[in-house]
Amino acid sequence: MKEKEKEGREREGHDTEDGAVLSPPTNFSMVEEGLYRSGFPEPSNLPFLETLNLKSIIYLCPEPYPEEHCKFVESHNIRLYQFGIEGTKETVSDDVITQALRILIDVRNYPVLIHCKRGKHRTGCLVGCLRKLQNWCLFSVFEEYQRFAGNKARGSDMRFMEAYNILRMRQCLYSLIYQYHGYGSNKRRLLYREDSMPKPRIKSS
Amino acid sequence: MKEKEKEGREREGHDTEDGAVLSPPTNFSMVEEGLYRSGFPEPSNLPFLETLNLKSIIYLCPEPYPEEHCKFVESHNIRLYQFGIEGTKETVSDDVITQALRILIDVRNYPVLIHCKRGKHRTGCLVGCLRKLQNWCLFSVFEEYQRFAGNKARGSDMRFMEAYNILRMRQCLYSLIYQYHGYGSNKRRLLYREDSMPKPRIKSS
Repeated sequence: MKEKEKEGREREGHDTEDGAVLSPPTNFSMVEEGLYRSGFPEPSNLPFLETLNLKSIIYLCPEPYPEEHCKFVESHNIRLYQFGIEGTKETVSDDVITQALRILIDVRNYPVLIHCKRGKHRTGCLVGCLRKLQNWCLFSVFEEYQRFAGNKARGSDMRFMEAYNILRMRQCLYSLIYQYHGYGSNKRRLLYREDSMPKPRIKSS
Repeated sequence: MKEKEKEGREREGHDTEDGAVLSPPTNFSMVEEGLYRSGFPEPSNLPFLETLNLKSIIYLCPEPYPEEHCKFVESHNIRLYQFGIEGTKETVSDDVITQALRILIDVRNYPVLIHCKRGKHRTGCLVGCLRKLQNWCLFSVFEEYQRFAGNKARGSDMRFMEAYNILRMRQCLYSLIYQYHGYGSNKRRLLYREDSMPKPRIKSS
């Protein structure tokens, strides 16, 4: 590359020597160690996702995963957990959020990416309920939700997060702890009941 | 506590049994593993900060650290690196950002919290330059900046981030690597030159 051209690219923030420029998905952020959130990844975002060494993806839309994305998860041995929440208003259900939270509290699924279409509403509700489980005050839960939703923030989502009864998850955690300690059985390993653990679903279009 | 009162508190998201409700500072977020950003922490946020097990704080305002905060950092053995950037427009300087980035690339300082007053402009510029060092494309750098700055986003900050020459940091990293490998000396340990490493500064009011 000519020196002048190279300089130009460097000024634009392109890296010409140390590897390709990385393009995270829209609305990408780290939530916790090994837990990420974003909008729907474009094919151009896949090289960035590769750097996260994901073990699981929680996908919150009803639409089938595009073929290119299916190939990506298969070739990288990523478990895809799909929960088909409609993108329209007031359709997030307690049960779906509880199921998704059960995946999030299981370290065997990490690193995890949560995403929907825009990374605003469905993803925001799930992360918000996780924050409640982490004892965050509602003010901070809403502030984080609004940071990602921007001027598309929905009162219905915030009412949902406020109303979500986190004691459901506490009970789930307690039952895990009891199972871990072999309470009432001889099991010593951290186990879910077969019937209560959602199975990874890989849907091709 | 009466049963009815308890139920009421639980409905509000307050935790009555498993520990106090945590209140993160305004505009709080995780940037990377062990790296956090926020606005100025209120005294009520200190219990939350305690859970992060911080080793360092990068404080980007010229105002002295309040006494309560000084006590907090001292009692938790946290190193305070203060860089007095004025909160008004167009005052972020390349040199200060380079100095702060040198702290951020040193794992010995982790976990780290970066904060200024609102966690929008000064903190946003520093995180943006770190993203450039991580090869993020400018689009994603700006998107992240704007998510935290909201309708207070400043063109001058974005121009600064775009113009910041990340090769300065690359040179710093290369010199570290050479020192690490004992290039030109017998040193085998990761060392900064004495004169180039900013010292922790704890300023009381």
